[in-house]
Amino acid sequence: MSQATQPKIYVAVVGVGLVGSELISQLLSIPSSPFHLVSLSSSKRTIFQDKAPIGADWKSLLDSSSEKPDFEKLTQNLAKLNQRVAVVDNTSSEEIATLYPKWLQAGFNVITPNKKAYSGDDGLYEAIITTSKASGAKFLNEATVGAGLPVISTLKELVATGDKIDKIEGVFSGTMSYIFNEFSTGKADGPKFSEVVKVAREKGYTEPHPADDLNGFDVARKLTILSRTISSGSATSTSLPNLKSFAAVKTASLIPSALEGIPTGDEFIARLPEFDDEFAKLRTEASAEGKVLRFVGVVDVSGGQVRAGLEKYPTSHPFATSLGGSDNIIMFHTERYSPRPLIVQGAGAGAAVTAMGVLGDLLKLI
Amino acid sequence: MSQATQPKIYVAVVGVGLVGSELISQLLSIPSSPFHLVSLSSSKRTIFQDKAPIGADWKSLLDSSSEKPDFEKLTQNLAKLNQRVAVVDNTSSEEIATLYPKWLQAGFNVITPNKKAYSGDDGLYEAIITTSKASGAKFLNEATVGAGLPVISTLKELVATGDKIDKIEGVFSGTMSYIFNEFSTGKADGPKFSEVVKVAREKGYTEPHPADDLNGFDVARKLTILSRTISSGSATSTSLPNLKSFAAVKTASLIPSALEGIPTGDEFIARLPEFDDEFAKLRTEASAEGKVLRFVGVVDVSGGQVRAGLEKYPTSHPFATSLGGSDNIIMFHTERYSPRPLIVQGAGAGAAVTAMGVLGDLLKLI
Ligand SMILES: NC(=O)c1ccc[n+]([C@@H]2O[C@H](COP(=O)([O-])OP(=O)(O)OC[C@H]3O[C@@H](n4cnc5c(N)ncnc54)[C@H](OP(=O)(O)O)[C@@H]3O)[C@@H](O)[C@H]2O)c1
Ligand SMILES: NC(=O)c1ccc[n+]([C@@H]2O[C@H](COP(=O)([O-])OP(=O)(O)OC[C@H]3O[C@@H](n4cnc5c(N)ncnc54)[C@H](OP(=O)(O)O)[C@@H]3O)[C@@H](O)[C@H]2O)c1
Repeated sequence: MSQATQPKIYVAVVGVGLVGSELISQLLSIPSSPFHLVSLSSSKRTIFQDKAPIGADWKSLLDSSSEKPDFEKLTQNLAKLNQRVAVVDNTSSEEIATLYPKWLQAGFNVITPNKKAYSGDDGLYEAIITTSKASGAKFLNEATVGAGLPVISTLKELVATGDKIDKIEGVFSGTMSYIFNEFSTGKADGPKFSEVVKVAREKGYTEPHPADDLNGFDVARKLTILSRTISSGSATSTSLPNLKSFAAVKTASLIPSALEGIPTGDEFIARLPEFDDEFAKLRTEASAEGKVLRFVGVVDVSGGQVRAGLEKYPTSHPFATSLGGSDNIIMFHTERYSPRPLIVQGAGAGAAVTAMGVLGDLLKLI
Repeated sequence: MSQATQPKIYVAVVGVGLVGSELISQLLSIPSSPFHLVSLSSSKRTIFQDKAPIGADWKSLLDSSSEKPDFEKLTQNLAKLNQRVAVVDNTSSEEIATLYPKWLQAGFNVITPNKKAYSGDDGLYEAIITTSKASGAKFLNEATVGAGLPVISTLKELVATGDKIDKIEGVFSGTMSYIFNEFSTGKADGPKFSEVVKVAREKGYTEPHPADDLNGFDVARKLTILSRTISSGSATSTSLPNLKSFAAVKTASLIPSALEGIPTGDEFIARLPEFDDEFAKLRTEASAEGKVLRFVGVVDVSGGQVRAGLEKYPTSHPFATSLGGSDNIIMFHTERYSPRPLIVQGAGAGAAVTAMGVLGDLLKLI
């Protein structure tokens, strides 16, 4: 079939925050676009426009809408189109994530940077796999790990072409990357841990409550997604554990136990200096071994373990020499990429690169 | 359409050498395969089998065939199938490359690790673009640059989603990577250049005639492919030159002019020591600046230049710290990946990873 005659894909966007807005703007900039933007929803408003596609005035259109989002109705309206449909979820909502199986069942492709579904309860994850297989609609989530970096697509290709994954190892959190690139450079001393976290927070690199980064959950979610991507793509079973959810990842939180449950970010930052000596001790120990500290995630397929935590790497290791800023770095150790791994590195967060990952998935539908 | 009901893709493989054999073996290992292997050709023999797909006994089948390859006839036979078709060219033949437009015109997808077509005369390159656009059949050549590494797909996605490429810079030749990782480590001295080349040749890292690597043509071809991928994917015109062929790339050959045209690899190796002092001098100069020598390729979009040659990099640069063995490394400097680039690194040659890149392209058709 000629590309010129390919029917357009009708795109419904849920979530128009940082990533969603940027996605819309990138999508509207594609020349002779294969997409028809048919619906937008925020947490408060929604629009549905099946005749002329939604265009550059989308923001004012949505702002002036008096309709509240109703996903039951959206699903019906999309089905009535009788066209190829993609729903893009740019929220971080659990509630929206639970709708994926229904959308996939209806034959709508689902594309998302939202980690909740694929890293949450295994029931939801399995429903996504099953409904997608049954209807042939695609579930694509490239931007959930490393944002625009080719991480999930690379992993899928390795697995689909029969390579054996030995281990995936990486710095998956931009926040953790920044903090430890600043804190641990291989020298025995350096800035105080609390000071680094404070500056990171001021620069907007952490969540308002830094404990939401330091607990390692974001990394555990990403590892769950990678681990499940391996399991669901592999022809034979692997030694990987069946993760009930991301909570099953062996995660070594960096939150000092005395600070667990502290309600506000400000209090947390105020008390963090009490623990500077502990972190400094780790740094000194690492330095004595010629190593740096990095907060890494590991999907150890051969070892049958998925873990997140602080590990030590020689100062000559790419995690020490090559990493900078708040970059992510991901190493794929496989049968074919051995003894030297395949490495992907770069910014793993930010609206523009995340939206690119989402739009890249949309383009895969064509 | 449900995946279960998707019609199979009929695959004709031309070239069953190192990459071709490995591709067939990877392809035959895919569970519930979406592919029907319909034809194989070497330079001497061919088979065509449209009923039962060709299976694990492909080698003996082909060996015992008395039919000579006839690509006119293959094209007709494939057209008669009235199915989705992919022709995979695993040769390095110019002659096969000239057949792509005919195949694309006929609606057959063309997939290849063969650099000849997309880096050769612009007439052939443009015919590929035009026929592929007209019929909707895809031309995919991921494995031509970096083998199985996600290089072309990443570049296409950056361009298609509207990122602005500033510069692509990399070590694109496994042979050159090995030679300079050994030769130049930042120190003022080290092994002799001729000695490193000799060992590389003995290890099978170079072509039988090392001049075929040292001339830089392989890198120039890869840069041509990248440069054309940018131009053909960009919505607006770029400052990149319209390359008539890879010969238009500004390529600084490493072959000493006195050794140009030396007929055999053995003679070349025998005379190379005469030039060790020249290379040693470059190394000493680089070292005095705290730099290493690397043979790199650069697609400088902003600067409107495509060049290949020896350049100097600080010993703290990833080309110095992170590179090892015969790895490729590719940096994408873009508007979105700025100031820090997106980096892809790993083995850029070898039958298994190259075949993976080819099979990955085949899987994109599904
Ligand atoms: N930003 C990044 O660098 C990055 C990187 C990788 C992945 N991600 C992921 O991308 C997603 C979006 O991130 P973001 O930074 O764009 O977040 P954001 O700025 O907070 O935007 C979230 C959007 O979702 C909407 N929303 C929330 N709950 C909703 C619901 N139940 N129904 C409808 N709309 C709802 C919000 O509506 P209102 O406008 O009404 O509040 C808002 O428009 C998240 O899953 C995040 O984890 C982000
Ligand atoms: N090997 C790598 O690491 C690598 C990496 C990236 C890209 N590539 C590219 O992949 C391609 C294949 O490489 P390779 O290492 O597999 O080469 P190879 O081992 O020399 O195999 C070439 C195959 O092509 C066949 N052939 C040559 N001319 C032909 C013609 N006119 N008609 C039909 N068949 C023909 C040969 O037939 P016979 O068997 O009869 O000789 C042989 O089966 C090349 O374009 C190469 O540049 C290779």
